[in-house]
Amino acid sequence: MSQSDDLALVDAYWRAANYLSAGQIYLLDNPLLTTPLTPEHIKPRLLGHWGTTPGLNFVYAHLNRVINARELEVLFVTGPGHGGPALLANTWLEGSYSQTHPDVPRDAYGMRRLFRQFSFPGGVPSHVAPEVPGSIHEGGELGYSLAHAFGAALDNPDLLVACVVGDGEAETGPLAASWHLTKFLDPAHDGAVLPILHLNGYKIANPTVLARIPHEELDALLRGYGYTPRYVEGDDPSTMHVRMAEVLDEVVDEIARIRQAARAGQTERPRWPMIVLRSPKGWTGPSEVDGVAVEGTWRSHQVPLAGVRDNPDHLRLLESWLRSYRPEELFDADGRPREELLALAPRGELRMGATPHANGGLLLQELRMPDVREHMVEVTKHGGGTSEPTRALGRMLRDVMVLNAEARNFRVFGPDETASNRLDAVFEVTGKQWQAGTEPVDEHLSTDGRVVEVLSEHLCQGLLEGYLLTGRHGLFNCYEAFIHIVDSMFNQHAKWLKTHRSIDWRRPVASLNYLLSSHVWRQDHNGFSHQDPGFIDHVMNKKAEVVRVYLPVDTNTLLSVTDHCLRSRDYVNVIVSGKNLTPDWLGPQEAALHCARGAGIWEWAGTDDRMDEPDVVLACAGDAPTLEVMAATALLREHLPELKVRVVNVVDLMRLQPETEHPHGMSDREFDAMFTPDKPVIFAYHGYPWLIHRLTYRRTNHRNIHVRGYKEEGTTTTPFDMLVLNDMDRYRLVTDVIDRVPGLGPKAVGLRQLMTDQRTRHHAHIREHGEDLPEIRNWSWPY
Amino acid sequence: MSQSDDLALVDAYWRAANYLSAGQIYLLDNPLLTTPLTPEHIKPRLLGHWGTTPGLNFVYAHLNRVINARELEVLFVTGPGHGGPALLANTWLEGSYSQTHPDVPRDAYGMRRLFRQFSFPGGVPSHVAPEVPGSIHEGGELGYSLAHAFGAALDNPDLLVACVVGDGEAETGPLAASWHLTKFLDPAHDGAVLPILHLNGYKIANPTVLARIPHEELDALLRGYGYTPRYVEGDDPSTMHVRMAEVLDEVVDEIARIRQAARAGQTERPRWPMIVLRSPKGWTGPSEVDGVAVEGTWRSHQVPLAGVRDNPDHLRLLESWLRSYRPEELFDADGRPREELLALAPRGELRMGATPHANGGLLLQELRMPDVREHMVEVTKHGGGTSEPTRALGRMLRDVMVLNAEARNFRVFGPDETASNRLDAVFEVTGKQWQAGTEPVDEHLSTDGRVVEVLSEHLCQGLLEGYLLTGRHGLFNCYEAFIHIVDSMFNQHAKWLKTHRSIDWRRPVASLNYLLSSHVWRQDHNGFSHQDPGFIDHVMNKKAEVVRVYLPVDTNTLLSVTDHCLRSRDYVNVIVSGKNLTPDWLGPQEAALHCARGAGIWEWAGTDDRMDEPDVVLACAGDAPTLEVMAATALLREHLPELKVRVVNVVDLMRLQPETEHPHGMSDREFDAMFTPDKPVIFAYHGYPWLIHRLTYRRTNHRNIHVRGYKEEGTTTTPFDMLVLNDMDRYRLVTDVIDRVPGLGPKAVGLRQLMTDQRTRHHAHIREHGEDLPEIRNWSWPY
Repeated sequence: MSQSDDLALVDAYWRAANYLSAGQIYLLDNPLLTTPLTPEHIKPRLLGHWGTTPGLNFVYAHLNRVINARELEVLFVTGPGHGGPALLANTWLEGSYSQTHPDVPRDAYGMRRLFRQFSFPGGVPSHVAPEVPGSIHEGGELGYSLAHAFGAALDNPDLLVACVVGDGEAETGPLAASWHLTKFLDPAHDGAVLPILHLNGYKIANPTVLARIPHEELDALLRGYGYTPRYVEGDDPSTMHVRMAEVLDEVVDEIARIRQAARAGQTERPRWPMIVLRSPKGWTGPSEVDGVAVEGTWRSHQVPLAGVRDNPDHLRLLESWLRSYRPEELFDADGRPREELLALAPRGELRMGATPHANGGLLLQELRMPDVREHMVEVTKHGGGTSEPTRALGRMLRDVMVLNAEARNFRVFGPDETASNRLDAVFEVTGKQWQAGTEPVDEHLSTDGRVVEVLSEHLCQGLLEGYLLTGRHGLFNCYEAFIHIVDSMFNQHAKWLKTHRSIDWRRPVASLNYLLSSHVWRQDHNGFSHQDPGFIDHVMNKKAEVVRVYLPVDTNTLLSVTDHCLRSRDYVNVIVSGKNLTPDWLGPQEAALHCARGAGIWEWAGTDDRMDEPDVVLACAGDAPTLEVMAATALLREHLPELKVRVVNVVDLMRLQPETEHPHGMSDREFDAMFTPDKPVIFAYHGYPWLIHRLTYRRTNHRNIHVRGYKEEGTTTTPFDMLVLNDMDRYRLVTDVIDRVPGLGPKAVGLRQLMTDQRTRHHAHIREHGEDLPEIRNWSWPY
Repeated sequence: MSQSDDLALVDAYWRAANYLSAGQIYLLDNPLLTTPLTPEHIKPRLLGHWGTTPGLNFVYAHLNRVINARELEVLFVTGPGHGGPALLANTWLEGSYSQTHPDVPRDAYGMRRLFRQFSFPGGVPSHVAPEVPGSIHEGGELGYSLAHAFGAALDNPDLLVACVVGDGEAETGPLAASWHLTKFLDPAHDGAVLPILHLNGYKIANPTVLARIPHEELDALLRGYGYTPRYVEGDDPSTMHVRMAEVLDEVVDEIARIRQAARAGQTERPRWPMIVLRSPKGWTGPSEVDGVAVEGTWRSHQVPLAGVRDNPDHLRLLESWLRSYRPEELFDADGRPREELLALAPRGELRMGATPHANGGLLLQELRMPDVREHMVEVTKHGGGTSEPTRALGRMLRDVMVLNAEARNFRVFGPDETASNRLDAVFEVTGKQWQAGTEPVDEHLSTDGRVVEVLSEHLCQGLLEGYLLTGRHGLFNCYEAFIHIVDSMFNQHAKWLKTHRSIDWRRPVASLNYLLSSHVWRQDHNGFSHQDPGFIDHVMNKKAEVVRVYLPVDTNTLLSVTDHCLRSRDYVNVIVSGKNLTPDWLGPQEAALHCARGAGIWEWAGTDDRMDEPDVVLACAGDAPTLEVMAATALLREHLPELKVRVVNVVDLMRLQPETEHPHGMSDREFDAMFTPDKPVIFAYHGYPWLIHRLTYRRTNHRNIHVRGYKEEGTTTTPFDMLVLNDMDRYRLVTDVIDRVPGLGPKAVGLRQLMTDQRTRHHAHIREHGEDLPEIRNWSWPY
């Protein structure tokens, strides 16, 4: 085919996609315009975003051309995610939509359904969502397209990820930072990302910054980010087609050259190509409505003609707009795209809507896991030894790296904290991926390292999401307080997973695993601004079937929990664990069993005889609370030996909920058996205390549950002082027991005073000497 | 004084600050090194961040020089906030620290306290915090320095905000986006921001991206952001001093020229100057320790010599390091900085630690408020009319703009949603601030508009924080779901406020007001990814004295609540309100009273006679739930007229808490009187239902409170369908009443069936026709 034939085809394909896009926004019926449009053909609620759509269709059609010409494997990431109509139109045209949605076939009947379901109750959302084949990126909240694209490209050496970045999205922080990911992507072992910055000039009601700075400034910016930009600018379709085809060919050639060079041993960081597409917002839509300009302005953002049902002029305008695409040339009488048009749709899995990379579960390989027992510590006496939980986990992760080195499908992400979180054993076998300059003093940097460290929680999260949704495995380690930076990204991912799980053709993907270390109870270096255990609360608001929260108490439980999480699918797992020396409470077998149960009575720690009910339950969730409960129990054992104390530990927070609320939830019977129906429960919890109430308010014994936790007190101080400041120290817990168990007699009064004195003594010592008394650090455990 | 004398003085001042910084990290005693160092002089826990500190000290000293030379008003924003020692050292040196902290005088006694308190339990945090005079920016979580700086500069035409940006921080999203704020700052009416990008090369354990790209790339990037960068690079102090002085003079001249031109009518956007300071991390610290390089590497990040107490070599190294600053030349025998040194400290409020801009409450002027009644709607019959709440609020905000136009101390911020949230009446009197290019089609853009719209919630929040902390007023309007983007920024601000309130010399500042519109219950345009009412839950985790949450139900209550919030101080106020037509439930007087009470019984809506207890309480919080409760009550009135229904509405969510937990909390007596001690309560709530349980679990009647709310169901659908999907529609609420009130008899059975049929009928209609039945939109209210 000649170039001009080629481009005539691209143009026809583009017109078809534009027609199908506008049809989705407007038409309830008469999809092929076989009769003149009447108000009855129009949807009662006109919803959808036209503005970005023709530009997306333009890119999609041109990508099809190069995919066909070169058999490229391309994943399409739609930054302007509100352009749902474009992706629905294109996947329907190429047939991938009907393949995943057989109820919407590629014919007139299907076209009617395609139109009707769009933004319609019970239908499909107006933005790109999991329902759209070929997508790994939800539309709506903006900022993450490029990070998702880079995440998808990692370890996919043959993949090209074409990522359209809207100029609205480009104003967000996460997107602005994402450009720099070129300093990480390895052209030898990773795929390529082709950013297509779409300057359509407007947001909802404002111009965009990048569309309104001089060309030289924009060019400098993009070169400064490390790219070689190429420009496709204009509004005349025929010139734009020629230019876009030319530029895409150049860009694809350039990417091939970069790959080849890198794979031949060239190590200099490439200046990756990118495209700037400047085209009118709402391109090819109505140019003027009611006397004001629409095409090329923000007025095209959503529905350019709003009064179609009631205003005959608008209806006429709509009809002539739709007919301007000449649907009769594009579709046959049965609504099927004409054969010649279909020549532009790539074949099979090369269709962007059919790429298995966008349905990562299809490609997912089981992670090869080391024997977790080999990394566990021996425990001959409960609390007899100490170890650093995350240090041990680092060794396990190192082995995961080794076992999956060949598959190249496991990565650790973190904002410069992997070593600080004591996972540095991984650096024995891999490095930190880095393509920027190096100095002799640097350590552990390597062009193809499997740890990605960039000081942006947004980028870590975005990369990991892209990596997981394309069928790989990973872990994000982060300081606990600052994981709130990605609250909203977590929301979007959890919502994606909820929907994804309900779609039959989407295969399960690996869970998103958070390891939150450097947590609220250790503020040696930091202070009040670094204290926030509320990510757990945030996570709990999402659908129960998607979220899991684990609070391991020591090395063996951390290993057991992480082993489980790394094998799981379609969840978000949150693991909170300290990194400092912690008593080893449970042996390997015990830890595995306890974690499998999620919560249990620690008979060896308590003093109740299991025949009767205890006098009091001391419950704990989290490493710091567990240590305090153990110390409080030791104190009670010593001073009130006749008191029957039961110790309950909760590793899997979801166990506390009713079984009707969460798949891990305990039955009321089980809960009553563990926490008693009527005895006082002193519950020391890692985070904000009210979460425990929220989880247990329906339980029989809820009224007797008294929770201690973090209550927004603290600064840079010693570990023990943090507990004192938040009323969760061992002495306070003993006092709580005394205050709540009736009939303890005069001995308890003396003990109460002793506890208060101890608190005061410790606190004063800390304020005077700046450190905890040695007895706190070396408490002797009677278990 | 000659230039070289000048720079000798700057160098001495720098050495003094460096000495004081290192002293804080290490010394418990012997602050002047009057005797050889012994282990007893050393702190038991060595904590703090040395790496960034000498660079900050360098900048601070040089700024002092130009402040003195030109009587400049400068606010210093410390992006590398972990450089706490630097700011503490400098404010102590210039005397502003002792002024705010008289217990730490500027003498040997005070120096010992300065050292001892640092990162010491009961002392001050290791990062810049509210305790540090001259600061508006908390250290720790990175990314917001530039946005804070720009926020502080708005409407402060004579102010220069010097903002040090760390190269670690520069990798974050919010910071990467902040550079573009030059497209908003108005040189005619706003102050100037001078970014000083500090390339010290390393984060905790990694090199930084910007320090490891070629000079040309960095230069292009910064020019692309719209700046003219000047470089100060090296490690030899004497050359660096000369260069820095030269560059600072140039830069200050350039800023003066820009201001002058703009104020003379020049409207072209200036290319603002900025400085790139490339200096070694841990500059002037130990160059090598235990055989490895420390100065100039990431090993200087925190404490360059860690073993000082136990390792005599380290102790010796520390002593010679400290003595290298020649403290005897800098301080007299009483520990006072020598007179000649003090010549560099600016006078009075020109000292950066003493600028009133950093203690905004000093400058805060009362906002002139319109009479809120003038904007309220008349209500002759409860629910008799409808209006758009945020539309009315827009008119009130317009008047606030007018009344405070001269003071220039009120602004509205939003991510491109001010019009979408229907606040567009403000554009009658002001524009959207914009310095980038314009086109004839643009609307409401103006170089000095008082609305700032940038598609980044991070930037909106950062600008507003900077604006408020420097003594002005504002409001941030945002879609409800996406406000989670700033969860972590809210955390930091709420923590700042909590500490700030406890500091006697800090004066109250205006509250940070959020208006969250386009909320979860209206998903006409959007869908599942846009649904998250959890910001309220997030906010509730912060200290009760700082946070307030309001759920107005109609126009008048929205106006009343906002009026109150705009007048308040030192809070974070969250207001959630729909923008669509809503029945006007309360007249002006009623609304004011109801909002002042925060919660109350709506006698006119209920059917109980106040003499006896009702049979059931229907409670509601939020506009959508209130509408459903009113409809359910109407249904019950019609079908079960003998049932005594009480309607309770909650506007101020904090009222639900016990009075011991929140200053707005109700007493148990009050709560029991409102919600009864034992009758069923059906509570329809705007957000996640468990929040109501969390707030009320201690109440007498908690067991009978049944909450309906958002449970993560929904997509793009009609307003009524959203309610059905989440089981909060009127028919479901009636069913809930029937299921919970005992002894209703056979009539109720029939009604239950009728309700279920109605639900089904409506749902089916929506799925079929894509819109709600007209009867839902035009429900007739019997009140």
